[in-house]
Amino acid sequence: MSDRLYSFVGSGSGRWNIVQLTPVVGEPLPDAACVGVFNGPVAPLPEHSAWCLRGVTSNERYVTAAEHAQLTARQPALDRTEALCAALIPVRKTQAWWDLAQDDRRAIIEERSAHIKTGLNYLPAIARRLHHGRDLGEPFDFLTWFEYSPAHAGTFEELVTRLRSTEEWTYVDREIDIRLVRAAGT
Amino acid sequence: MSDRLYSFVGSGSGRWNIVQLTPVVGEPLPDAACVGVFNGPVAPLPEHSAWCLRGVTSNERYVTAAEHAQLTARQPALDRTEALCAALIPVRKTQAWWDLAQDDRRAIIEERSAHIKTGLNYLPAIARRLHHGRDLGEPFDFLTWFEYSPAHAGTFEELVTRLRSTEEWTYVDREIDIRLVRAAGT
Repeated sequence: MSDRLYSFVGSGSGRWNIVQLTPVVGEPLPDAACVGVFNGPVAPLPEHSAWCLRGVTSNERYVTAAEHAQLTARQPALDRTEALCAALIPVRKTQAWWDLAQDDRRAIIEERSAHIKTGLNYLPAIARRLHHGRDLGEPFDFLTWFEYSPAHAGTFEELVTRLRSTEEWTYVDREIDIRLVRAAGT
Repeated sequence: MSDRLYSFVGSGSGRWNIVQLTPVVGEPLPDAACVGVFNGPVAPLPEHSAWCLRGVTSNERYVTAAEHAQLTARQPALDRTEALCAALIPVRKTQAWWDLAQDDRRAIIEERSAHIKTGLNYLPAIARRLHHGRDLGEPFDFLTWFEYSPAHAGTFEELVTRLRSTEEWTYVDREIDIRLVRAAGT
């Protein structure tokens, strides 16, 4: 197992309380009360767990050196005191997406959908960490974890709305939107 | 587990007899008599196994649509009757490599090292399948499996020599070269 593996466990207890779990497209995910985030595998799962989603942080797949420099200069760390809100957004893309060559995927992601550029506009308000699940045989290709302060809840809504309106998102065939708030005192 | 997972088990039995196992750079791998190739996980390992290396076939990371079309037109399938020779070449790249942005990695791999173009010159003589291990937490980032006829043994030697002389290969910090011949009657 990679030490870059993260497990997101939906169950009855955990640091993050689920306030909304919405299937955006495709098969839904069972309801749960909380999400626990673990760096590593979770086995055995806690009793009454509803699901466990896994992914690894990895090297960048599309970002250029120039974009990387801009991201690095602006992106905040996770776990800021004021970031009481979070979102976990599991996404799966179609086989047609994965069959595209690298330059075609890059053209759709950035030249035509401005995914990286759009994300930059929301830094440093929104912190994020991307996890890859496809090569692990997970049900979702990507798990993106976002953290932000309650004051930026509207900003976050705008970000996900903009991304979902892009050409890139026409290749998404399963997506769940899980919104969370940090349990008091944690 | 992904159904694209492959396990390469070095042990006392298997379809492919090891004729040479050479550490090219970095930590060596224990000797073994044979390699068995399995589509899926192997657990528990056969008694007296020396090692088990795993990787997943995945989407292309660098190949453009134009290059993809050329590759598809020329690359042969594995398991040809005449392909009695094989090579398993596990490779790990440095952290500096993985820290590079996508465009910098592409420039080194192709514009400056001609990895894809060089490979094309050896098709259809050499069949190959690439497996990714890095995000699985495996000791090697890549396992490349090659198959060719004894008549093309010199051609294969030329291919690996050319690749090892490139700028891309300066980022390789562990590499094992395992040469194999198919067991009689298999």
